[in-house]
Amino acid sequence: MKVKVEVFLKPGVLDVQGKAIEAALGGLGFKDVADVRVGRVISFDSAAADKAAAEAEARRMADRLLANQVIESYRVEVQ
Amino acid sequence: MKVKVEVFLKPGVLDVQGKAIEAALGGLGFKDVADVRVGRVISFDSAAADKAAAEAEARRMADRLLANQVIESYRVEVQ
Repeated sequence: MKVKVEVFLKPGVLDVQGKAIEAALGGLGFKDVADVRVGRVISFDSAAADKAAAEAEARRMADRLLANQVIESYRVEVQ
Repeated sequence: MKVKVEVFLKPGVLDVQGKAIEAALGGLGFKDVADVRVGRVISFDSAAADKAAAEAEARRMADRLLANQVIESYRVEVQ
């Protein structure tokens, strides 16, 4: 099944990429945009037995490799 | 309202980050994982009048700034 892990900087950690995009969007005339945050998505096919197993495995992956939990938080979605 | 734009490399474009993560996961013992792809998510607050307007605006942003359409595709989600 398809698994998606979204990794974002924690609230309070300065998101310089987000700030840069917000400024660039403003320069292009997109003014009604606020609080731009940039994260990454890691998507993959899992051969786990069921949804719960796939989600548990994805959380272990995020804890060990995909996210830096000092400054990042993550969200797992199994489809 | 909250808008999320997911940007991924198009199928067929070599995703070196995804390959590196797949290899690293394999090295950590996560063997039942395949087709790892890495993308980015840009999330923001939109002050658009309604969902349709927010989505249309996000598409214009993606076309102009957020995605490189030669090698990337994107998906817009309005919450």
